Amino acid sequence: MAYNVAILGASGYTGVELVRLLSAHPEVRIVRVTSRQYAGRPVAEVFPSLKGFCDLDFTDPGVGEIAADAQVALTALPHRAAMAVIPDLLGAGMKVVDLSADYRLRDEAVYREWYQDHTSPELLDEAVYGLVELFREDIRKARLVANPGCYPTSVALGLAPLLKSGLVDVDRLIIDSKSGTSGAGRSAKVDTLFCEVNESFRAYGVPRHRHTPEIEQTLSWLAGRPVRVNFTPHLLPVSRGILSTIYADLVPDMDQGSLEEIYRDFYRGETFVRVTGAQLPGIAQVTGSNFCDIGCVADPRTGRVIIVSVIDNLIKGAAGQAIQNLNLMLGLDEDCGLGAAAVWP
Amino acid sequence: MAYNVAILGASGYTGVELVRLLSAHPEVRIVRVTSRQYAGRPVAEVFPSLKGFCDLDFTDPGVGEIAADAQVALTALPHRAAMAVIPDLLGAGMKVVDLSADYRLRDEAVYREWYQDHTSPELLDEAVYGLVELFREDIRKARLVANPGCYPTSVALGLAPLLKSGLVDVDRLIIDSKSGTSGAGRSAKVDTLFCEVNESFRAYGVPRHRHTPEIEQTLSWLAGRPVRVNFTPHLLPVSRGILSTIYADLVPDMDQGSLEEIYRDFYRGETFVRVTGAQLPGIAQVTGSNFCDIGCVADPRTGRVIIVSVIDNLIKGAAGQAIQNLNLMLGLDEDCGLGAAAVWP
Amino acid sequence: MAYNVAILGASGYTGVELVRLLSAHPEVRIVRVTSRQYAGRPVAEVFPSLKGFCDLDFTDPGVGEIAADAQVALTALPHRAAMAVIPDLLGAGMKVVDLSADYRLRDEAVYREWYQDHTSPELLDEAVYGLVELFREDIRKARLVANPGCYPTSVALGLAPLLKSGLVDVDRLIIDSKSGTSGAGRSAKVDTLFCEVNESFRAYGVPRHRHTPEIEQTLSWLAGRPVRVNFTPHLLPVSRGILSTIYADLVPDMDQGSLEEIYRDFYRGETFVRVTGAQLPGIAQVTGSNFCDIGCVADPRTGRVIIVSVIDNLIKGAAGQAIQNLNLMLGLDEDCGLGAAAVWP
Amino acid sequence: MAYNVAILGASGYTGVELVRLLSAHPEVRIVRVTSRQYAGRPVAEVFPSLKGFCDLDFTDPGVGEIAADAQVALTALPHRAAMAVIPDLLGAGMKVVDLSADYRLRDEAVYREWYQDHTSPELLDEAVYGLVELFREDIRKARLVANPGCYPTSVALGLAPLLKSGLVDVDRLIIDSKSGTSGAGRSAKVDTLFCEVNESFRAYGVPRHRHTPEIEQTLSWLAGRPVRVNFTPHLLPVSRGILSTIYADLVPDMDQGSLEEIYRDFYRGETFVRVTGAQLPGIAQVTGSNFCDIGCVADPRTGRVIIVSVIDNLIKGAAGQAIQNLNLMLGLDEDCGLGAAAVWP
Repeated sequence: MAYNVAILGASGYTGVELVRLLSAHPEVRIVRVTSRQYAGRPVAEVFPSLKGFCDLDFTDPGVGEIAADAQVALTALPHRAAMAVIPDLLGAGMKVVDLSADYRLRDEAVYREWYQDHTSPELLDEAVYGLVELFREDIRKARLVANPGCYPTSVALGLAPLLKSGLVDVDRLIIDSKSGTSGAGRSAKVDTLFCEVNESFRAYGVPRHRHTPEIEQTLSWLAGRPVRVNFTPHLLPVSRGILSTIYADLVPDMDQGSLEEIYRDFYRGETFVRVTGAQLPGIAQVTGSNFCDIGCVADPRTGRVIIVSVIDNLIKGAAGQAIQNLNLMLGLDEDCGLGAAAVWP
Repeated sequence: MAYNVAILGASGYTGVELVRLLSAHPEVRIVRVTSRQYAGRPVAEVFPSLKGFCDLDFTDPGVGEIAADAQVALTALPHRAAMAVIPDLLGAGMKVVDLSADYRLRDEAVYREWYQDHTSPELLDEAVYGLVELFREDIRKARLVANPGCYPTSVALGLAPLLKSGLVDVDRLIIDSKSGTSGAGRSAKVDTLFCEVNESFRAYGVPRHRHTPEIEQTLSWLAGRPVRVNFTPHLLPVSRGILSTIYADLVPDMDQGSLEEIYRDFYRGETFVRVTGAQLPGIAQVTGSNFCDIGCVADPRTGRVIIVSVIDNLIKGAAGQAIQNLNLMLGLDEDCGLGAAAVWP
Repeated sequence: MAYNVAILGASGYTGVELVRLLSAHPEVRIVRVTSRQYAGRPVAEVFPSLKGFCDLDFTDPGVGEIAADAQVALTALPHRAAMAVIPDLLGAGMKVVDLSADYRLRDEAVYREWYQDHTSPELLDEAVYGLVELFREDIRKARLVANPGCYPTSVALGLAPLLKSGLVDVDRLIIDSKSGTSGAGRSAKVDTLFCEVNESFRAYGVPRHRHTPEIEQTLSWLAGRPVRVNFTPHLLPVSRGILSTIYADLVPDMDQGSLEEIYRDFYRGETFVRVTGAQLPGIAQVTGSNFCDIGCVADPRTGRVIIVSVIDNLIKGAAGQAIQNLNLMLGLDEDCGLGAAAVWP
Repeated sequence: MAYNVAILGASGYTGVELVRLLSAHPEVRIVRVTSRQYAGRPVAEVFPSLKGFCDLDFTDPGVGEIAADAQVALTALPHRAAMAVIPDLLGAGMKVVDLSADYRLRDEAVYREWYQDHTSPELLDEAVYGLVELFREDIRKARLVANPGCYPTSVALGLAPLLKSGLVDVDRLIIDSKSGTSGAGRSAKVDTLFCEVNESFRAYGVPRHRHTPEIEQTLSWLAGRPVRVNFTPHLLPVSRGILSTIYADLVPDMDQGSLEEIYRDFYRGETFVRVTGAQLPGIAQVTGSNFCDIGCVADPRTGRVIIVSVIDNLIKGAAGQAIQNLNLMLGLDEDCGLGAAAVWP
C-alpha cells in the first residue's frame, strides 16, 4: 500500500526533481503538486520530460485540500513561504519534510540575524535536522524534518569524520565550495541567464552567505564546541553538482593511510557515502545520483589535510535527501527509490 | 532467473552506458565486461560513477571464455572489430546485439563502398535491423540484431509516419542533424578536446557521412522505393543528445491537425516514442531516458512540413535501444530496465 | 578629429558590444550611453569588463540632449522603442544606424503583419538596408541605415553568390540556422536561464520566426523574383555565434570547383567575408571578429549544394556591422576599428 | 621599424594566442612559426581563425635558420624541449621569452625535485622571472625572461600587496585555484576530451602540483622569508580563465577600507591590474584581455581576508604577459599590442 504525498512548490528545479524521483518510488504515490505560477496546467505540458510519469495538473490549494489527500508533504517553497504553511500542515496531522531554510537553525536569534523574524519559533526545537548519516534515529521519529541545504550537506559529510576524530584544529577550517547553477533556482534573474554564467566563474555571498550559520551549527555539534569557518561559495557553469574543497590543519601529523581509515570507518555501512581516498572525486561521478563521494589527501609538507566532497545538489543536496528522510519517517528502507547510478557522461 | 550477458568493448561511452543500464536491469546479470585498454583494472576504479553498481574487473578474453559464462553478448566495439568476433560468438551459441555498423546494411556492396570489405557477408541476410518500433516481430526471433546508429534512429523514427502515409515527396527530404559529443567516442583525438568543441558548432562529414546509406536503407524500405537524402550532421557542445530537423515537401497540402494525427496514430501504444505535436521537443527533455520525442509543424506558406525528433544518443541511440532489442530477443518485457525519466535539468 | 556618437540602449548585449568596439575605434568618441534601467550608474561598475575603456555613466536623456552632444546615434533599442525616437533623432540633424527591426522591411504591410503598426512608415523608403557587401554605395549616402538582423546577415551572405548566379531553384531553399544565446537578449526570462539552455538544443519560432520576411526580402532582391523559404532557427548552448546550414537545388549540376569559384569571385576584395570552400567553417573561428566565413559543398548524389555560413551574432550580426555602416556613412575606411581576429579557443 | 620575432611551438593554444596577438602588434613582425606536427602546412589552414592575419607556413627549422631571420624568440614549447634549444638561441645572439617552466625556478635542486635534471643550470641565475608588476626593471635588461606560469601569476599578483604589507600570517596561506581547460594544452588526451570536462569539475595534482614551488618562490621573495602554501588547482568546464581564491589570516584585524587601500596603493599606475575591492571579479570580465582583476574582502567574523584574482590564462597567464615582457626587453611601451578589452559575454 502506497503512501500519499503532496509536493508543495513543485515547479522549481527541486520540485521537479521531487516529482521525477517520487514518480519512480515504489511505495509512494504523488497525489498533489502545487504551483502558484502554473496552477491549472498539466505538469507534463510545462515539463515535457515528465510526460508519462506524472499525469497531474498543478494546483494552488489550501491546507485543508492538501491534507484531505495526502499524509506527507514535501515543501520545496522559498524560505518564509515555507513557515507560512507548515504549522497548518502539521496541525492537520501531516508529516512534513521541509526543503527550505526555515527550520534548519536551532536558534531563533541566529535565524533572525541571517534571514528575518521567525513566525513559528516554537517548532524549532521539534524540527529534526535531516542530515541522515548523522541524525538517522531522530529522523525516524520526527514529524517535521528540516532538509539540509545543499552546501551544508557537502561540507558536513566531508568534515564529520575529522571533527569526530578530534584530530584537526577547528579554528582553522577553510571551506571553498563550488555549485552548479540549478542551486540558484528557476526564477527569472539576469544573474543566472545563460550568457552571464557560461564561460565564467565567480565567488558570491562573501563573506556572509546564508548557509554559513547552518554549516557552523552542524560542525559545532560535531566538534562539541563552537566552530567558525570561512565559507566561500562559487557559481559553476554546470547545471548540477557541488564540489567542496575543505582545508584543515591536522593537530598531530597524520599519514594518508590513517586519514583514509578514519573516513572509511566513519562511513562503513552507509549506502550513500562513498569514500574515494586519494583519488579525489569529480562532480560528474555523482550527477543524477544520491551519492556523496568524499576524497581526502594528507599533505605532509604543510601539515594540512584537503578534503573534497561532491554531491548532486538537486539530489543528495535536496530532493534525494528529502526522500531519504521521507523513507525513514515512513519506516521504509532508507534507499527506497534512490538506487540510481550517476548518469555519466 | 537472470540471463547472463557479456559486454564487449565496455570502456567506451556506449559500453559504460550499457553497464550502467544493465546493472539496474532486473532480469539480466552482467558477467563479463571486456576492454583491451583497461584489462585487469576494476570497472569502478576506471569509472568511479559505477562504484557499488559493478564489481567486475575489465578483461580481454577469447570467445570461448565469453561463451562459457554468458548467453548473450552486447558488442560495443568499433566497426571491423565487431565483425572480427561476432561470427565466433554466434558459432558458440550466443545471441548477439551488435552496436557497431557492421551488420546494419543489407547490401554487401554498399557496406564496401562506405566502409571496407565485409568479412562475414553471409550474416547480412540473417541480421535483423534493430529499430524496434519498425521491426519488432523480426527482432523477437533474431539471433543477431544490428543495433541502429544514433542518427539513423532519430531520422527513421521522425520520418516513418510520413513515409508510410505516402504524403510527402520522397525525392526532396532534407535532414539536418545535431549531435552531442559523446557520439564521437572516448578515444583521444584533438578534434573532440574540450576547447575544440566548447563554444563552437560545426558541420562535419558533408556530404558523405557514413550514416547516410543506413538512413536511406530504412527510408527506402518505408517508402517502398529508393530514397536519396541530404543528411548533414553537426557537432553540438553538449555531452548527450541528438536533434534532427527534417524538411519534407507535402504532396497535397495538409493542416497541422491532420499531420499530428498521422504521428499519433502511427505511434499509438509505443512506450518509447512521445509525439509532442507543434510543441517542438528539445534535447534536454529526453537526456538520460530511452525516449524519442517527435514534434511536427505544417507550414502552409511553403507547403512543407518540419519534423523535429530528439533522442539521447547513448540510450535510445545506442545502449537503451540495444537493451530494448535484448529484451525482445529474450522474451522479456520490452521496457524492462528502461523506465527512467529524463534527468532534467 | 573624432566623430561624437551616442549609443542608445547600451546595456543590452549588443549595446555593451558597441561600447567595447567603439571605445577602441580611432575616429570615433562615445559621448553618451543611455539605459533606462541603469541611469545614473557608471558603465564600468555595471559591466566591469569595460573598466578603463569607458568612464561614462548611463543616462536616460531626451533627444535634445542627445543631439546636443552627438552627430551620430546607434540605436540598440527593442523594436517599437526604436521607431519611437528615431524620427526625432533624424529631425535633430543626426545620422542614425538602427539595430532594431523597425526600418528593415521595405513594405509597411509586411511590417504590420509580422510586428505591429508602424509609426513612421514614411521613413521606410529612405532607410537603407545595411548589409554592406550588397548595398555599400547606398549606405555611404544614407541618413538612416537599418542594420540587418543576425540570422538574415548569415543567410543573405551565404546565398548571395548562388542567387546572383541564377543557378539554383529559388523555390526550394531550406535554411536551418543555429544561434548562440546572446541573440535572445539580456532581459530576465526563464527560457534563457543557464539551466534551461545548457546541455540542451531546440528549435523555436517554427514556422514563423520574425526574421523570415527580412530574409525573404533580401533573397527576393537577389533573385529578382519573389522567394519563399523555410527558415528554422535553433538555440545553441553557446554565448556567441550563428551557423546557418543552407540547402539549395542546383538547376544544372555543378562540380565543387565551379561552386567555389562562384563564391570566391563574388566576394573577391571583401574584407569581412572569407570563403573556405569545402572546409566548412565552425562558429569558433569567427567569435570575437567581424568576419562571415562561408563554406560550400556540392553533392553530386542529390544534385544539391550545402552552404554553411558563420558569424559572431553580436559583431557581424549586430554591433560590428553597425560600425561598418557607421564608417561608410562618415566616409571612413570600412574596416576602421573592426580589425580584430577571432579569439580562439 | 619592426622587430622580427620567431614563435617556437606555435601550434598549441598558447602558441596560437601569440600568433593572434603579435599579428596585431604595431612594432613586431612574426617571421617564423614552428611546429613539428604541422611543418609544411599554412597556419591559416590549420587555424582558420587566423586567415588574413598570418600568411606563414609552419616550419621545423634549426636554430641557425631561426636566428638568421629573427632577433627575438618566444618559446611556447613543453618544458624540457625549451631548455634543449634556448641556450643555442641565446648563443646565436637572440633574446628569448620562454613560456615553459624551465627557467622559472632559481634553485636547480628544486627544479630537479619537481621536474627532472636541468640541462643548462648555468642560465638559472641570469634568467629573469617575468612577472612584470614585480620585476619590471630587471626585465628591461634581460636577455632571457622566464614567463611565469598561469596559476603563479594569478596567485602572486593576488597576494603581493598583502605580503609586502607584512600584515598576514605567511604560514597559513590557502590557495584554491580554478582553471579553464586550455591550460591543459592541445595534445590529445582522454582527460581533456569534451565529455570528460563538460558538466564536471574536479581538483587535480593534489597536493603536489608543479606550480607549487614557483608560487612559493615568489611568495617567499615577497615575504622576505620562506613561505609554504597549500595550492589546490581545479579544472573548470570553460575554455579560458583562472580564478584563484586565496585565504589569509590577518595578523592584526583590518577593516575593509584599509584592505582595499593597500591593494589600490600597491597597484597604482599599473596598466594591467584592476583592483575591484569588495565587488569580487568573475572570470568573464577579463577573458580576451591582459588584465588581472583583484577583489578583496575582510571577514571580521574570522579575522581572515579572502582575495579573489582572475586572469585569462592564455593572455595575462601566458601569451599576453610574454608580450609585456617582450615590449620591455625591446624598449617599447609595455602595453603595446595588448590594449584589448575583454570580449564579454
